[in-house]
Amino acid sequence: MQFQDIPSDLLREATEQMARLPGIGAKTALRLALHLLNRSDEEVRQFSNSFVKLKSEIRYCSVCNNLSDTPVCSICASTQRDRSMICVVESIKDVMSFEATLQYKGLYHVLGGIISPMQGIGPGDLAIDLLLKRAQESEIKEIIIALNTNMEGETTAFYLYKKLRPSGIKITSIARGIGFGDEIEYADEITLGRSIRNRVNIEESFGK
Amino acid sequence: MQFQDIPSDLLREATEQMARLPGIGAKTALRLALHLLNRSDEEVRQFSNSFVKLKSEIRYCSVCNNLSDTPVCSICASTQRDRSMICVVESIKDVMSFEATLQYKGLYHVLGGIISPMQGIGPGDLAIDLLLKRAQESEIKEIIIALNTNMEGETTAFYLYKKLRPSGIKITSIARGIGFGDEIEYADEITLGRSIRNRVNIEESFGK
Repeated sequence: MQFQDIPSDLLREATEQMARLPGIGAKTALRLALHLLNRSDEEVRQFSNSFVKLKSEIRYCSVCNNLSDTPVCSICASTQRDRSMICVVESIKDVMSFEATLQYKGLYHVLGGIISPMQGIGPGDLAIDLLLKRAQESEIKEIIIALNTNMEGETTAFYLYKKLRPSGIKITSIARGIGFGDEIEYADEITLGRSIRNRVNIEESFGK
Repeated sequence: MQFQDIPSDLLREATEQMARLPGIGAKTALRLALHLLNRSDEEVRQFSNSFVKLKSEIRYCSVCNNLSDTPVCSICASTQRDRSMICVVESIKDVMSFEATLQYKGLYHVLGGIISPMQGIGPGDLAIDLLLKRAQESEIKEIIIALNTNMEGETTAFYLYKKLRPSGIKITSIARGIGFGDEIEYADEITLGRSIRNRVNIEESFGK
């Protein structure tokens, strides 16, 4: 299907807007636009307003740079968190992933991206200065780097390590190894090499 | 991922709205909402406006009931079409499919759905009266029923046949048979049975 086959300008415009979303093809976009047309006026208004409202009202936490409805996010404002640890992640999605584990009770720092010369994203585009400022607070004892293991992630991790080292704070990385349920036979050499180099006492592997 | 894991009300609302679209799961919905957040204010406004505008400004062609930006759609208004034939379809998507074949030069009639007792859709909810009115026009010589071959489609086709028969107009159905590229070995019995019962002269099968 091609957009110019759509005989209505209004429907074509709505379909093209849908198709600009990542992973939505032309046919799916048309189906979604027609689906919205079958909803009530009020429902379509709510759908549309939610994105305008998100874009215009969302804030970034002044402490950790996470997306937030308030000047300081709920995690940074909580009295239940361990304020001696900061877990550095790329985006709010990673915060949600770690929160879902229920295993981490420290604070976060959301970079808002990753150093990528290919995409023209340098250290200045990320919330790195804010992190360096936080590292000077006396209560911080450990900074955990939790970035994806691709070229950009490793570059960013190394950059952060060099910048944070002078602070004297303990800097750690999340463990890399064989995922739960993954088969050793199919693991790549780098993962497998790290898993043997960074081996742990077997009691720890049982989750204590 | 669950919606309540999203720590921002604004982001949660936008994600839930995305996830209400058919075929969009929670994780994809979050990804799409975050994607929109990375767009400019103007782009988000254009995205949102396109659906509100579609919903509030779209018209239904007063002749054929197809979606249209104008009181009479471009096909019904065209002087290039064969006005003696009406092809009855369920939705604008089917109009687009037939138009893409470049094989049909007649008019259409868009029912706007299909009779489905399960979903509470009766003949009165569809543009059937409008079709019966058109059938009384002297220039109409043939009405082609082009509905999907499921229970609802066959029910609707039979209902239309009974209603249109008194008009004396020739009523036809699109050919059902083995699709181009389909293998006979894997065809179901109903399709195969019809394909042998409704066989055509081999010259016709070459597309003349």
